[in-house]
Formats: sequence, C-alpha cells, structure tokens
Amino acid sequence: MSARLIGVGTGPGDPELLTLKAVRALAEAEVVAHFAKAGRCGNARATVEGFMRPGVVELRLAYPVTIEVGWREPAYAAAIGGFFEEAAAAVEAHLEAGRSVAVLSEGDPLFYGSYMHLHVRLAPRWPVEVIPGVTAMSGGWSQAGLPLAQGDDVLTVLPGTLPEGELARRLGDSAASVIMKVGRNLPAIRRALAAAGKLGRAVYVERATMAQTFSVPLAEKADDRAPYFSLVLVPGWEARR
Amino acid sequence: MSARLIGVGTGPGDPELLTLKAVRALAEAEVVAHFAKAGRCGNARATVEGFMRPGVVELRLAYPVTIEVGWREPAYAAAIGGFFEEAAAAVEAHLEAGRSVAVLSEGDPLFYGSYMHLHVRLAPRWPVEVIPGVTAMSGGWSQAGLPLAQGDDVLTVLPGTLPEGELARRLGDSAASVIMKVGRNLPAIRRALAAAGKLGRAVYVERATMAQTFSVPLAEKADDRAPYFSLVLVPGWEARR
Repeated sequence: MSARLIGVGTGPGDPELLTLKAVRALAEAEVVAHFAKAGRCGNARATVEGFMRPGVVELRLAYPVTIEVGWREPAYAAAIGGFFEEAAAAVEAHLEAGRSVAVLSEGDPLFYGSYMHLHVRLAPRWPVEVIPGVTAMSGGWSQAGLPLAQGDDVLTVLPGTLPEGELARRLGDSAASVIMKVGRNLPAIRRALAAAGKLGRAVYVERATMAQTFSVPLAEKADDRAPYFSLVLVPGWEARR
Repeated sequence: MSARLIGVGTGPGDPELLTLKAVRALAEAEVVAHFAKAGRCGNARATVEGFMRPGVVELRLAYPVTIEVGWREPAYAAAIGGFFEEAAAAVEAHLEAGRSVAVLSEGDPLFYGSYMHLHVRLAPRWPVEVIPGVTAMSGGWSQAGLPLAQGDDVLTVLPGTLPEGELARRLGDSAASVIMKVGRNLPAIRRALAAAGKLGRAVYVERATMAQTFSVPLAEKADDRAPYFSLVLVPGWEARR
C-alpha cells in the first residue's frame, strides 16, 4: 500500500460486528492508530484485538484529559486545543513516510467520532477512505430487541448534555429519540423524559453488544450510576402493526 | 440449530460492509427469507449473493404493491394490510418445523426496516436474535467523506415524505439532518432546505456504497430524477476544529 488515511469504524464493541472491510483494512494497513484516555485501552482497540496484524506499528493517541465535559465549554476547548493538532501531525508523519494508516473509531467514524478531527485536518492533503461501522445506538436497540423507528417516524439523536428544558422539548417533538452521553446527566434526562410524557417508553442500555452488557426499562433503573457511553432509547412506531 | 428467528442487517449495499456476524448467520441458518418488490431482486438479497450457503432454503416475501407512498395513507394500509401477516405466517411455518430463519434487512433491521413487521409478530413467541448492520446513512456520509455530527450536535432523521413546512421547521431546528425517502419528494425537500437556510450545505447521495454510486452537492443536482432510496445529508459541526 501507499500513503493513505483509512478511518475504520469498529462498531459497538462485539468483535463479530466488525465489517469484512474493516477486517481487511486491519490486515493491510502498515500503521494502526487509536485514541484512548490516559492509562486506558480504548474500546475500539479492545474490539480489534483478535484482528491486529503481527508486527503492525501501533500509534496510540492519548487524550490529555477526560472528555466527559461538553465540547463547547471553555475548559474543554483549552485542554483539548492542541491535542488534535498533535495527533494529526503524528499520523501525518507516517503518511509522509509513505505508510497507510488505519485510524480506529468506535461505532461509525463520521458519526460523533474522534476520527473526524483527523479527517478534517488530513483529508484535504491525502488519499482518504472511510469505512462505515455499526453505531453504538444500532447495537443498543438490536440487543434490546427494540424496534426503533418505522415509516414516517422522525428520529432525533440528542446529547444528554443538552439543557433539561431543551431535551424535554425535543423529546416531545420526535416520534423516536436516542440520548447519548448519559453518564452524570441521567437524573436530568429522566426528568426531561417525564416532562415529555415519554418516561414509560424509555429503555436504558449499557455497554451494548459487549461482554458485560445490560438493558432495562429506564423506569426500573436507579440514577446512582451510569457510564458516559450508555444510551437511553425512546422507540417510535407506536402502532406496531 | 433449532427454531430461531434472526434479523440480519446486510448494510448499505457493498458486500464487504457485511459484519462477520451476518456472514456467520448466513452460513448457519437453514432458511434465508428476504423482502422484494414484485419481479425484482431486493438489495439485501443482492448484497449477500456471494455468502449464500449452497442448498439453503430461500423464502421470498414479495410486496404486493410499491411502497413509494406514505405508510399512513389509507391506500397503502389497505394494500399492505394482510401482507405482513402472511409473511409472518410463512416464516413461522419454518420455525414450527424446527428451522432457523435468517431474515435479510437492508441497513439495520430495527431502523425503518421491513423486518420489524415480522419481529413484532414473532418475537413474543420465538427465540430471536437481531444482528445490527451499517445503515444506508452511514454508508452515504462515509462515501461522501462528510463529517456528519460532532460534540453536542443534535441530529434529526427526516422522511422526505413530511409536509414541506414541517421539513423546513425541523431542518432549521437541528445542527445536522438526514433526509430519507427522497425520490419524487426532491423538489419539496430542496425548497424546505432553502427556507431553512441549509441548501448550500446539503449533499445528495445515490446508491451509497453500491457499484453505481454517486454523490454531489444538492445545489448542483437537478430535480429530474432521484431514486426512492437516495439520501440528502446536511452536516453539522460547522466549526470543524
């Protein structure tokens, strides 16, 4: 292969939910890059463990800080500011040496993925391929066996970091909703669902398709603890006919 | 295997975007069922052509009429009424004989898929597994190299069959949007995008990830012809930083 950036969607966590194309990219790429929190192995890297080519060069891109704050907050912008520039430069050094670089991305690369920060910096200058992946939300509703949207349903994807009033308004205005970035926002999300009259339909899903996965009607879930990457699903298609 | 219903997401069209799990299901299932328009081979069946087990029993579920009318319209409801009941009965006959039945679904099975009509009828009575797939919209924005949503972006999925005024309102109220079911609705979709001030950002994608695929800024696309399953994408993340 020659210099080439490949955004590789690794899906929601179950290694069997890798696509054939993602597996081929892992077998062929000379460098595999992946984002991770400091001191942790990222979910995408864990997902592909059984598909790493022996001897492949790994490039670990370690976030300088937690990302569990809204990305529009000044504290986040200040902390993360130079990181994506440095990460893009590290990837580009391999491209300049003529290597193909696969960048792992949980779920789908261009759907809220960190890969996007490399893509916008490097795609204007280098050959790029993006391999779509199964999103975490698809993994969630499939595991819960929850028909999410049908026919003329409007579906809205909402960050749980939105203000409670805005969450309630948007939940009430959509047939189906997916709430991401749950974590510490769970109590506010629960109140917004109640205000929109949708609490009884909501399903909580944690670590969809992974080994320690768990799903339950939100009404039966306590507010005590929820990982940042858990989801709340509100199905549409009330008629179900 | 024993009696078991398996909803298999076949992804947006490129056979390499099948998941390993979907390929395994096709290798193991005793019956493969698929929806199709009368006289046509469905996209999902075409996608899996190279992965069909020799000798597998095929169950073709042929729609009685075009589905290119809104599903809430009385004419549609009348024509389609008994079809899903008959399709579920045909699948259930195989389950009653102790067979495993894989039902193909373009994209992701529980995301606007026909499989859902079988799922709600049969899941209460039979063991069911749903294998999520890459959605057509993920295939579309990946192929176009278009970063769709990031950070706190709200993303809305809109059927192009919605009234023009409602489309415009929702487009204006979301950072990112995906418009499905384009087809004959393209002129109204274009007017709604213009009214929302988003026409300049919109990208048209046809047959994403398939052999004859095509994408172009919507502003450069004529209204003359668009397949029903083409997409219009409106990316969020205006900062791109």
